[in-house]
Amino acid sequence: MATMIVTGAGSGLGKALTHRLVADGHRVAMMGRSPEKLSALAESLGDRVLPISVDLSDPQAVHQAFDYAEAWGGAPQWVVHCAGLGHFGALSGQGDDAIQSMLTSNLHSTIWVGREVVRRWGHHEMVLANVLSSAAQAGKAHEAVYCATKWGMRGFLESMRAELKGQPLRLVNLYPSGIRSAFWAGSDHVDSSGFMAPEEAAEYLVDALSAKSSCYVTEMSIGRY
Amino acid sequence: MATMIVTGAGSGLGKALTHRLVADGHRVAMMGRSPEKLSALAESLGDRVLPISVDLSDPQAVHQAFDYAEAWGGAPQWVVHCAGLGHFGALSGQGDDAIQSMLTSNLHSTIWVGREVVRRWGHHEMVLANVLSSAAQAGKAHEAVYCATKWGMRGFLESMRAELKGQPLRLVNLYPSGIRSAFWAGSDHVDSSGFMAPEEAAEYLVDALSAKSSCYVTEMSIGRY
Repeated sequence: MATMIVTGAGSGLGKALTHRLVADGHRVAMMGRSPEKLSALAESLGDRVLPISVDLSDPQAVHQAFDYAEAWGGAPQWVVHCAGLGHFGALSGQGDDAIQSMLTSNLHSTIWVGREVVRRWGHHEMVLANVLSSAAQAGKAHEAVYCATKWGMRGFLESMRAELKGQPLRLVNLYPSGIRSAFWAGSDHVDSSGFMAPEEAAEYLVDALSAKSSCYVTEMSIGRY
Repeated sequence: MATMIVTGAGSGLGKALTHRLVADGHRVAMMGRSPEKLSALAESLGDRVLPISVDLSDPQAVHQAFDYAEAWGGAPQWVVHCAGLGHFGALSGQGDDAIQSMLTSNLHSTIWVGREVVRRWGHHEMVLANVLSSAAQAGKAHEAVYCATKWGMRGFLESMRAELKGQPLRLVNLYPSGIRSAFWAGSDHVDSSGFMAPEEAAEYLVDALSAKSSCYVTEMSIGRY
């Protein structure tokens, strides 16, 4: 039994991962934007989970949320940053709010969470896993700002990896392609019906994040048929 | 004689490029954060330049600045986005303001300028050149957030390139390593005395951005000895 922190726990991959971790006997501090989604999860999962409603694009709020999680469960074994959102379409048609929300929810949040974990637990044996996207691995038409945030995450995390070399904190970068979830609600540039099931992606994650004595997964891409 | 827009024109590479373009007979709309630096340049360069003091991290301000530049000089032949800043050091010690200013000055500004150019001149034969950095090409210890912004720029621009395929707007990504300039003032993690001269980097830029009939430079890295 360990304690974990999962961000973006209210839906999609974060929710599936939370279910799986609780089923495996762990406790999960669930961070997310929507108190309603987190409460619904907490009702079904009981006292193994702690719902923490937080805006991860605000560094002070991130600090307080991690205080709360640590007071409840101590230093976590894994921090899995799944939170993120996307708005797609031609760049010329993207509005200020859509662009700002992708920048803050995807990239800024990753920086605040990463800095928080390093400040708090930089010398602990634990995992900081970040869910990027195949959009971090190529430029994609109609996803310019989304790609900017995911490439930015990758540059940040690769730099953290260089900086943390020799320290016990393990960084894992995950690059799933499209996952079937509410992420795609309101998006008409893709048909998400053939996308991967979040529960199956969560299974790969749990396997990849589990510690071995002499090695660990640093990056994993998950594709679909 | 053509009109150009140069951002970050008040110092470093942007300033050197502005001098060179004016010497070549062009007119330059100079955008920058510091009215003092721009005024000083305008005094020495005369009516060939238009100083435009603007915060490029604000999309509305970007729109107004480009209105002003277009009213003065029409559609430019080149837009060269040199603006940017850096704060370096261990991630755990980086403050909120330093992080926010890098995100907004480097990455957000690139997105607002890119969107503005596509909306305004997406079907024109012209150049949008962006000055990234070798920090867009690798992860670097003590530069985690700076790398995040530069990798983010690259993801954005590679996506724009995919989206604009077949259109006449030419995107050029420039990756200089350290340039000798005020950029490094207050930074003690590097010795910038051996860095490249901004005037010499500007010479490469002018050569690379100049049009040929059957091909154009899409990316150029500039190293130092």
